[in-house]
Amino acid sequence: MSSTVGQVIKCKAAVAWEAGKPLVIEEVEVAPPQANEVRVKILFTSLCHTDVYFWEAKGQTPLFPRIFGHEAGGIVESVGEGVTDLKPGDHVLPIFTGECKECRHCKSEESNMCDLLRINTDRGVMLSDGKTRFSKNGQPIYHFVGTSTFSEYTVIHVGCLAKINPAAPLDKVCVLSCGISTGLGATLNVAKPKKGQSVAVFGLGAVGLAAAEGARIAGASRVIGIDLNSSRFEEAKKFGVTEFVNPKDHDKPVQEVIAEMTDGGVDRAVECTGSIQAMISAFECVHDGWGVAVLVGVPNKDDSFKTHPMNLLNERTLKGTFFGNYKPRTDIPGVVEKYMNKELEVEKFITHSVTFSEINKAFDYMLHGKSIRCIISMDA
Amino acid sequence: MSSTVGQVIKCKAAVAWEAGKPLVIEEVEVAPPQANEVRVKILFTSLCHTDVYFWEAKGQTPLFPRIFGHEAGGIVESVGEGVTDLKPGDHVLPIFTGECKECRHCKSEESNMCDLLRINTDRGVMLSDGKTRFSKNGQPIYHFVGTSTFSEYTVIHVGCLAKINPAAPLDKVCVLSCGISTGLGATLNVAKPKKGQSVAVFGLGAVGLAAAEGARIAGASRVIGIDLNSSRFEEAKKFGVTEFVNPKDHDKPVQEVIAEMTDGGVDRAVECTGSIQAMISAFECVHDGWGVAVLVGVPNKDDSFKTHPMNLLNERTLKGTFFGNYKPRTDIPGVVEKYMNKELEVEKFITHSVTFSEINKAFDYMLHGKSIRCIISMDA
Repeated sequence: MSSTVGQVIKCKAAVAWEAGKPLVIEEVEVAPPQANEVRVKILFTSLCHTDVYFWEAKGQTPLFPRIFGHEAGGIVESVGEGVTDLKPGDHVLPIFTGECKECRHCKSEESNMCDLLRINTDRGVMLSDGKTRFSKNGQPIYHFVGTSTFSEYTVIHVGCLAKINPAAPLDKVCVLSCGISTGLGATLNVAKPKKGQSVAVFGLGAVGLAAAEGARIAGASRVIGIDLNSSRFEEAKKFGVTEFVNPKDHDKPVQEVIAEMTDGGVDRAVECTGSIQAMISAFECVHDGWGVAVLVGVPNKDDSFKTHPMNLLNERTLKGTFFGNYKPRTDIPGVVEKYMNKELEVEKFITHSVTFSEINKAFDYMLHGKSIRCIISMDA
Repeated sequence: MSSTVGQVIKCKAAVAWEAGKPLVIEEVEVAPPQANEVRVKILFTSLCHTDVYFWEAKGQTPLFPRIFGHEAGGIVESVGEGVTDLKPGDHVLPIFTGECKECRHCKSEESNMCDLLRINTDRGVMLSDGKTRFSKNGQPIYHFVGTSTFSEYTVIHVGCLAKINPAAPLDKVCVLSCGISTGLGATLNVAKPKKGQSVAVFGLGAVGLAAAEGARIAGASRVIGIDLNSSRFEEAKKFGVTEFVNPKDHDKPVQEVIAEMTDGGVDRAVECTGSIQAMISAFECVHDGWGVAVLVGVPNKDDSFKTHPMNLLNERTLKGTFFGNYKPRTDIPGVVEKYMNKELEVEKFITHSVTFSEINKAFDYMLHGKSIRCIISMDA
């Protein structure tokens, strides 16, 4: 790979020229990494709802042309000045949020919300110079959450790359770079069910299924899945879900249904939908005295979380989490190890795979609710 | 004391015959303790806001005649059948909530909300037979929260008595049986500030000052007191409060004032007023990433806690607590030991003292906001 170091690389990328229009595979130019940046050859990427959300650009300020993609696995091609933690050939997972290791958040044992590299969905340029590393015929193409993995090569801040075990198969562990870790960490790091406890999971998409997988790993005795789509229960059983509740099947609030099923409430609840009503239900369905509810799903701008304060005073805990409270560089290599030692099952999240030229199919699968995760092979 | 065992005791009690009317010292009859009950000679009692609240009976169902009082210290006179944990002569603190040691809550490491003996402000009788142990000329007189300490002798369920070090001065440690432990435990057991962290305390009454004392003991670097009454700051300094904010002095929400003072928010906040607005401010003034807010104050029936869910997703934690998460029998003896080994200062909470015959003065001091705690000596 030494021939490309310091050079502009021409390669294929899937460019979103306009909101909601199919991506177009283009030959783009990828500039060399600057200080504290790393150029990565992406081998596998997958599609997450967040890509689709910003590609649709309903509500946010549109920023196009842009290269989306943030769940991926790749190999370091070259590193910029000052990068000492990574070298060419290292296997990495790009992470949409970062860890500078210097700020108050990075130095806190509890937070992973790095002041410098915290997710920024509006920024389409690199931090150091405010410019893009992607262009086509001189026209800049914007980055997405600092990762832009829908490209054969991409440039990423060193703080947004987790160096992982090179023996880990990138076509599998690439899904650990966002959604699966988010749900898994919400349960294992934040809800922390004890062995034998009950866990309710609201929303059985990829994140919710990963939260259920976390409950299974923790040894939960009951994992109650809640979803408006009853057909998801069958699939969810593979992820440890033991019981299912569809709120539409009941005349009373789902928190009351769950309280009746569990002699007063579940021990832990994890909310993975972003619906404000589900957030309130998730909180109110945990047992008084010790129940913990964890919010994962991203709400709408104007939502308001409302509950009677006695629900708190009766010794319930309400917490939110971001990326499962994992610190990208410090903790994600360990999540990959959980897969390597067979504690965590990743294959069952991967329902589809396509070649890079078929990337728009991955969007179709997700938009039609067919896929949990669809892997896109860059070199196929 | 053996002469009174198994006998009805005639003694003095301060009886509330009607809502809001001065208590009347009467000679009452106190029946012997039944199974799992203990008859206690009260030596010192103090007055807490909860006594006043139920004596005023604004809002709740009135239950009179009644003997109030729940912060106290005494000595066991005799025990009923099945009581093995206590014997005549033991020094005890009556607790308004209990610990049966058998239910799911008592067996949980996290909860102190005993299913059997959890506070019940509506019940005026003993659990075992639904009757009172107090009477005057055959007329039953109701109990209050299972303690009724405004009497020379009272009958209490064994699960509502903490057996303490007999060397502890009851005229001091009696205040640990309710408010002081509530505030102290909210900080030490629930907010758990680390050494050097900042703590905001909303409300500088007895409970809030005890929360501040907890922050002082934990080694907090800054303790910010918030109260609508600026004159409380001077007194609060004795309890570790280092800075003061009166929300009335600012044009912006107090959570914004605190965020500006603390580079983004305090590490911990403890709410001790019961005002819903203070609860919301206490939550929103903690730092993202690691901030923990603890609600202690009891809200109004129709209050609604409202916040934007992003405040949670940014990794803040919201918890409520009841009696500082202390288990009455298991933990309160240890709180007394904290006083005995000079870790906890109790004297500064005691601002007044009166004889039993002057008990209505204690109500006046509290109603006029003059006292933190007023000790009532039963035998003076």
